[in-house]
Amino acid sequence: MIVILKQNPDANQLNRLISWLREKGIDVHETIGASQTILGLIGDTHHLDMDLITALDIVDDVRRVQEPYKNANRKFHPRDTVIKVGDTQIGGGNLTLIAGPCSVESEEQICAIAESVKKSGATMLRGGAFKPRTSPYSFQGLRGEGLRLLSMAKKLTGLPIVTEIMDISQLPLFDDVDVIQVGARNMQNFELLKALGQTHKPILLKRGSSCTYEELLMSAEYIMAGGNEQVILCERGIRTFENYTRNTLDVAAVPVLKQLSHLPVIIDPSHATGKSALVDSLSCAAVAAGADGLIIEVHNDPAHAMCDGPQSIRPEAFDALAKRLRIISDAVSAK
Amino acid sequence: MIVILKQNPDANQLNRLISWLREKGIDVHETIGASQTILGLIGDTHHLDMDLITALDIVDDVRRVQEPYKNANRKFHPRDTVIKVGDTQIGGGNLTLIAGPCSVESEEQICAIAESVKKSGATMLRGGAFKPRTSPYSFQGLRGEGLRLLSMAKKLTGLPIVTEIMDISQLPLFDDVDVIQVGARNMQNFELLKALGQTHKPILLKRGSSCTYEELLMSAEYIMAGGNEQVILCERGIRTFENYTRNTLDVAAVPVLKQLSHLPVIIDPSHATGKSALVDSLSCAAVAAGADGLIIEVHNDPAHAMCDGPQSIRPEAFDALAKRLRIISDAVSAK
Amino acid sequence: MIVILKQNPDANQLNRLISWLREKGIDVHETIGASQTILGLIGDTHHLDMDLITALDIVDDVRRVQEPYKNANRKFHPRDTVIKVGDTQIGGGNLTLIAGPCSVESEEQICAIAESVKKSGATMLRGGAFKPRTSPYSFQGLRGEGLRLLSMAKKLTGLPIVTEIMDISQLPLFDDVDVIQVGARNMQNFELLKALGQTHKPILLKRGSSCTYEELLMSAEYIMAGGNEQVILCERGIRTFENYTRNTLDVAAVPVLKQLSHLPVIIDPSHATGKSALVDSLSCAAVAAGADGLIIEVHNDPAHAMCDGPQSIRPEAFDALAKRLRIISDAVSAK
Amino acid sequence: MIVILKQNPDANQLNRLISWLREKGIDVHETIGASQTILGLIGDTHHLDMDLITALDIVDDVRRVQEPYKNANRKFHPRDTVIKVGDTQIGGGNLTLIAGPCSVESEEQICAIAESVKKSGATMLRGGAFKPRTSPYSFQGLRGEGLRLLSMAKKLTGLPIVTEIMDISQLPLFDDVDVIQVGARNMQNFELLKALGQTHKPILLKRGSSCTYEELLMSAEYIMAGGNEQVILCERGIRTFENYTRNTLDVAAVPVLKQLSHLPVIIDPSHATGKSALVDSLSCAAVAAGADGLIIEVHNDPAHAMCDGPQSIRPEAFDALAKRLRIISDAVSAK
Repeated sequence: MIVILKQNPDANQLNRLISWLREKGIDVHETIGASQTILGLIGDTHHLDMDLITALDIVDDVRRVQEPYKNANRKFHPRDTVIKVGDTQIGGGNLTLIAGPCSVESEEQICAIAESVKKSGATMLRGGAFKPRTSPYSFQGLRGEGLRLLSMAKKLTGLPIVTEIMDISQLPLFDDVDVIQVGARNMQNFELLKALGQTHKPILLKRGSSCTYEELLMSAEYIMAGGNEQVILCERGIRTFENYTRNTLDVAAVPVLKQLSHLPVIIDPSHATGKSALVDSLSCAAVAAGADGLIIEVHNDPAHAMCDGPQSIRPEAFDALAKRLRIISDAVSAK
Repeated sequence: MIVILKQNPDANQLNRLISWLREKGIDVHETIGASQTILGLIGDTHHLDMDLITALDIVDDVRRVQEPYKNANRKFHPRDTVIKVGDTQIGGGNLTLIAGPCSVESEEQICAIAESVKKSGATMLRGGAFKPRTSPYSFQGLRGEGLRLLSMAKKLTGLPIVTEIMDISQLPLFDDVDVIQVGARNMQNFELLKALGQTHKPILLKRGSSCTYEELLMSAEYIMAGGNEQVILCERGIRTFENYTRNTLDVAAVPVLKQLSHLPVIIDPSHATGKSALVDSLSCAAVAAGADGLIIEVHNDPAHAMCDGPQSIRPEAFDALAKRLRIISDAVSAK
Repeated sequence: MIVILKQNPDANQLNRLISWLREKGIDVHETIGASQTILGLIGDTHHLDMDLITALDIVDDVRRVQEPYKNANRKFHPRDTVIKVGDTQIGGGNLTLIAGPCSVESEEQICAIAESVKKSGATMLRGGAFKPRTSPYSFQGLRGEGLRLLSMAKKLTGLPIVTEIMDISQLPLFDDVDVIQVGARNMQNFELLKALGQTHKPILLKRGSSCTYEELLMSAEYIMAGGNEQVILCERGIRTFENYTRNTLDVAAVPVLKQLSHLPVIIDPSHATGKSALVDSLSCAAVAAGADGLIIEVHNDPAHAMCDGPQSIRPEAFDALAKRLRIISDAVSAK
Repeated sequence: MIVILKQNPDANQLNRLISWLREKGIDVHETIGASQTILGLIGDTHHLDMDLITALDIVDDVRRVQEPYKNANRKFHPRDTVIKVGDTQIGGGNLTLIAGPCSVESEEQICAIAESVKKSGATMLRGGAFKPRTSPYSFQGLRGEGLRLLSMAKKLTGLPIVTEIMDISQLPLFDDVDVIQVGARNMQNFELLKALGQTHKPILLKRGSSCTYEELLMSAEYIMAGGNEQVILCERGIRTFENYTRNTLDVAAVPVLKQLSHLPVIIDPSHATGKSALVDSLSCAAVAAGADGLIIEVHNDPAHAMCDGPQSIRPEAFDALAKRLRIISDAVSAK
């Protein structure tokens, strides 16, 4: 951590600051220039509250040098984390394909889609039971009943299931769920993250639509600090000035997050733009960029899906896409 | 609502769409041009799922003409909502000044600040007990104990208290709280909003740092749809490309939200930029723009505040500011 | 175009508006609802000034249905534009690889890099002579001398050259340049665009870092309206809240722009993030998304490049990348 | 400047870097920690190219401590710059009101508006002759003829005139113009800035809609480095995710820019949102925040303005606003 002092700092205050830092086991190196003095803080600064120092009268600015996350940091854990879910593995060179409808609608629907995407090579089944909708007047999901139908599809196909939780109180219903998804809007619902840190299930953590890489990794850190190290990071489009698409897919998130962290990184090309016609191109781009997998909305009747129909693709399209993805994955993993 | 069709739409599908809309009580007017056909939908389109229509093969685009919120909409409720809290009123020409520390730290701290800001003209006391922090390693608030200390300061000064809730499970602890705050990160925690819609307490709803005016009003709608009409909207800075400041205060939110809605609108100049040196200017700007009030961080020792010290101002500064705000408020309310 | 009227519009004003529109050859269809009246305007609305209508007292809002660009619009020109430059073609299924240093520095440098990238399969040579730099104190390029050195490298290798123009007055120096580049900061330098519309050279038009797809296409329209139809669109990263990277690559720009327009679309993975370690992944992603080509910074000594060194890759890295790109290009063009 | 090294940096490279810096007159202080080494660079680092250092293999990151601008920096020029234009002064506690139509349309129009705004207290006249329009099919301004009409209005009323330049080649026509405006889209047209640095006229420099404070000040630096120190900074709305308004007014720009620089800062409330109904509130907010002035679009017939009608206010509205602004200005300057 670097502390940039204001010009002519009060000597007493400066001494108090340096003593306080040394008491906390931090080494302080002073660099005194003609117009500026800089303090270099060396040691474990994770637990140091930057804001406290910034607030001091003699301080102009404070900059972190080390990342504020530890458990999620590749520097302290150089090897890729690989997460086992049923017979499949996420991370470590595997290509994970999670597919299924936006919302679970009925037994026939979820079972038919599950069988179809399995045949095309999907390794997990997705489907929303609890649905975060902007309007209180929109369909809110089948909730508990949706989870029951997902279990039936899992039993039928053997595909592990991924579905979203929206509140701590729903946790008891998630016993048969294999991977619990935290939606973009809940990425900084810290009480929920803490509760999930106490579970033993893998967590698929979606990046908030205007959260930085560092904030995403800090939210992963919340879960991991509780003892649950099985976190899958998911980029699903960020909010920008461009609104021809619902969000803007930040494909650079893949190589950046994999550099900063050892956790697996997947992409949601469906929510990234909200347009089904773009899902194919963006899926190819994500795998070419090195993503560990994709979570794609597939619906047998997108025009009558209960929500998010415009971003779902048909099973036939998914089948053709999955084949192309294997070729791209081989091309980039050969490097 | 306007439906823009693709060129040469399939006649059968078009007829099915029109019949389906008419069954729902919607009047459909067709405008047929050489290269484009447009459907104008007239009637109550609040309960119509735009996404369902957008997903149809024959549809190019769908645009709302009416706002998707009803209870929060000034069109259906032209007069300003005025919310009574203790002896004070929010909205309707009153200038509400909510002041206090970022976090409640101790009995002495919260009581001293409460007495001081009351003397300067504050009408309510703020103070965080449950603190949403980006890092799991940062101070998370005194939680239940913090609420107890706030009650003591309320008893001492008579100031109503405003404090943040982070999870539904904390609600039973909020009995003595006068106004429940929903933080920016929870603005789209829909399960929490639904629960607050069942309470009878005013809700101070902060705009998410990358949420639009419409999304803010839809979140207010979640609370109001549950029966609780006492919602106070709060702009607290949005996330932009500029990061010299923590956020960018969107001061136009004041006149825009007051045009679109009848709910009171206040500004948080402290979180808006994260820099105490800017609080004075931004407070004046907010009141000049027509805000119904401000929620300001005031701390007797900002350099040792447990969190967010850099954005707190001192009691003396608050006192001088409050006087200036009255003059500006009078100047603009005279128009 | 759709005109949404305010409630109870003045009948005289409404009649005047309708007559005025009909005089301009526009068909007007009225849709009258209980609480809202909508006008559907049918005909060629390209030349209609939306702002003029929006300003009327009786008008609430005006929405375009047709795109405001014509020459660049795929609807009026369904087949891909293919641009010939020397022996190479841009667009129409060809993979264009433009490579070279950020700045031209010396004869040895530009000639060595040109020979190297040609061997690796580059089809054009890039190199900056006029350099737009944020600081007046940074190196501003070799200017005229830089163009002369580029010509030497072209003569040596036969590679066509692409280089940036910064002001109309520099145009006479661009005689031997094959493709003139308009930088992101000049995308809306309309006087420059008009002047380039009068030339007969292909223009590589970079998207401004906070310009929408529509604005990019409108800038292409400026050039095309002057008679020069050879425009290559280039996405090079947009400005967002995320600043771990210099910009955020908007990879969805590729399929979107190719849907909206018939012009070729290329990607600049070097400026997209400003980090050389990400160039490889983003190049693969761009080609997988369907880009017609890439413009990549390659430097034989990135650590001593006169500018933008951190985003340049080495010739060996470019060589390996080019091979991988061919495989991905084949995989996605097979669909 | 601070240089953060990678773990275990190569000793030879490190020594070469340190020698190179010392040759440039920079003092280098090493801070060596268990897991990190930091170099503190002390001296005049304005002319040091950050990118060159960042590109080195042993370097992880480089952070500026000093601002990269010098002439525009308040640290080196603590007193407010006051710019004299005719009988009026900009900066130093004066409230500058620049008013007039978006575009000059005719002699009657510009003269009538000039006389009216003068009566209401405007201190300068604005009016566009060269108009930057997104579409090549929109009205592009009366150009040379527009400048001639502005001169007539100036002669009639004595009001100094402010109008926009779009290209260096137009400069000879600006002889009778008092303040030359650089539009937001040209803020980083560096060749134009250099040319304006050679003139002796005040320059009103608008902030690009997605440019940072630092970039704005660097563009001012381009002009000042040429010898022209009369620069007026203007915030006119930035591009954000919110598109209910055309742009988002960043009112915090006022106190921030006045802190960082000694140059006067004005606000353009008309372009800031593109909606005339918001101009009044935003003007009051800007003055309350400490702005040195406003540039406002006033039109006697906004509904028939040739461009940007929706954001112009009427002369009567301007008159009432000007009175209110004086009161607010007095209230805040008293502090």
